[in-house]
Amino acid sequence: MAINRAWLAVVLAAGALAAGCAQQAPFALQDMGSFHIGGREVEIKGRPVKEVLFTAGGVPAKVDPNGIYQVEQMYVQYFIPANRRGALPILMWHGGGLTGVTYETTPDGREGWLNWFLRRGWSVYNSDAVERGRSGWAMFPDILPGDPVFLTIENPFERFRIGAGEKSFNRDLSRAKVLPGNQFPVQDGYMNFTRQNVPRWTTTDVPTIAAYTQLVEKVCPCVLLVHSQSGPFGFRVAQARPDLVRALVLVEPAGIGDIKAVDRLKDVPMLAIYGDYIEQDARWPTIRGNGVKFLEAAAKAGARYEVVDLPKVGIRGNSHMLMMDRNNGEVAQLIQNWLEKQGLYR
Amino acid sequence: MAINRAWLAVVLAAGALAAGCAQQAPFALQDMGSFHIGGREVEIKGRPVKEVLFTAGGVPAKVDPNGIYQVEQMYVQYFIPANRRGALPILMWHGGGLTGVTYETTPDGREGWLNWFLRRGWSVYNSDAVERGRSGWAMFPDILPGDPVFLTIENPFERFRIGAGEKSFNRDLSRAKVLPGNQFPVQDGYMNFTRQNVPRWTTTDVPTIAAYTQLVEKVCPCVLLVHSQSGPFGFRVAQARPDLVRALVLVEPAGIGDIKAVDRLKDVPMLAIYGDYIEQDARWPTIRGNGVKFLEAAAKAGARYEVVDLPKVGIRGNSHMLMMDRNNGEVAQLIQNWLEKQGLYR
Repeated sequence: MAINRAWLAVVLAAGALAAGCAQQAPFALQDMGSFHIGGREVEIKGRPVKEVLFTAGGVPAKVDPNGIYQVEQMYVQYFIPANRRGALPILMWHGGGLTGVTYETTPDGREGWLNWFLRRGWSVYNSDAVERGRSGWAMFPDILPGDPVFLTIENPFERFRIGAGEKSFNRDLSRAKVLPGNQFPVQDGYMNFTRQNVPRWTTTDVPTIAAYTQLVEKVCPCVLLVHSQSGPFGFRVAQARPDLVRALVLVEPAGIGDIKAVDRLKDVPMLAIYGDYIEQDARWPTIRGNGVKFLEAAAKAGARYEVVDLPKVGIRGNSHMLMMDRNNGEVAQLIQNWLEKQGLYR
Repeated sequence: MAINRAWLAVVLAAGALAAGCAQQAPFALQDMGSFHIGGREVEIKGRPVKEVLFTAGGVPAKVDPNGIYQVEQMYVQYFIPANRRGALPILMWHGGGLTGVTYETTPDGREGWLNWFLRRGWSVYNSDAVERGRSGWAMFPDILPGDPVFLTIENPFERFRIGAGEKSFNRDLSRAKVLPGNQFPVQDGYMNFTRQNVPRWTTTDVPTIAAYTQLVEKVCPCVLLVHSQSGPFGFRVAQARPDLVRALVLVEPAGIGDIKAVDRLKDVPMLAIYGDYIEQDARWPTIRGNGVKFLEAAAKAGARYEVVDLPKVGIRGNSHMLMMDRNNGEVAQLIQNWLEKQGLYR
């Protein structure tokens, strides 16, 4: 009986696919799940024991803060399609102050890149960087050095090329100075996007790169798809394990790798994508310039790379959050085409 | 071409189902995605502007900490099966110091309750409570009152009825005093379980209940499946919206609801499940006793409830983390049977 119903769903699914309704069609997973990877144990000593009432109406429990803590681990959620067409899994790494939610449903409720690539037969591993989201975070400054950074709701609006720079935000979004033609779903999505922001440190690159490297060693060979802050993480991890990173898709990388070891990238094909409004921004011409210079240095050591400035190929209006922009499918298709050219799709 | 391959996958899937390999068989999703819900805006004033280098090798950015913050929102991830057999979605709410990861893959790599119920045709909404995981957290004590609680690796071992109470933990797990017959996957899973722990506050019940209530108002009528700290949240939210909560599955609830409003539960069927080793524990006889008393009070107001002490029905060895225990499928089946009895499965 269950099987008959399953069959019916499947027939409907195939019918919907045939009719071209890819967005609404069901899709089959071989498996999905999650795990944590990496981290280390740290001992804390000499603190007083506390009594904690964990739940109102519960029973108080003694909590001894002295002892060993598990810290700097990383959360990874994976989705394996039944009909695998990507030759390798794609690892999606998010940017600063965010989590793997970046690649899920867009803030205005459309499908994100996780579903987009999964529907096309790619296995996807979507992680939360160390000290973000489901990876958890540790005592500071005892374990994590320094303070976390919290962002106001206006900060990403003005810094992510959604609004026209400083002072462009207005809580009444209809009065905010949005960059003309911007593809970010401001009215329907910006306030939801602020809900996706999480505190972040600026002092945790070393454990973050360590955890990402362990992830690559566990689940690769693979494609890395990195965004913003994870750009430099992608470069560094590819430099550490060029045997396991078969392609590096850099979506507006916010930094570079180890310039002294660019030759490590000679067999890693790289695609760097930049959105719109770069020239008029206070910071992005330098960030993009540094990224391109790094890729050029890698090319001198034998690496193949492509830089796509989206406006130059007729894709206009992209903010820094390209995977959430209204035309996120168009940008995904550009990545898909490049991956096919690398022989990574069957 | 893509469709032919999809069909092939589907035929294989149906074959595997027919062969009874439910764990390994593919399953079809109608949709999956995520959203944030709830929260509020808070203004912070009078702080100095900082310059932050977000990414090594990047370009410093001014960060003005003054302004409006989005806080106390909640993250929800949903999975809708193609072949829906549950009459209503199940909302899974995790316990203290944890996130929605509770219901995903078990710490030793087996399928968790999220997949278990999804494979049987239930839509599942799995959330991270306010200030945990992908919900993010806010400045403290400025916005979140008090300090976060961090747990050592030994704390859950001794408090969650895995080990035999205080001083039962040993970092060399082969020398730890595990409760005899315990079903928690200690050797293969306990250290991974410690990676799932996240900091938590004990002062955030009000915004947490508010966000859960908004979630229920958005996606229900539904079944609530709650664990430990979310036990009292489940009671409270069911009391707030008994018209939307059609069944309440309480897995070792750590607290109770509003005793003055038990009549609000008169039309909400309730199932409370308790694991093993309760009597010999320092806190659980009281916690269980309070829970049962609350249910009895609700029954006097007309509510229907069932209390299942697992050892009394022959299911032995369960820790507080029943959804991760080796026999998690057996406990899930007991919940499934009860839901079927409530007429919630077709």
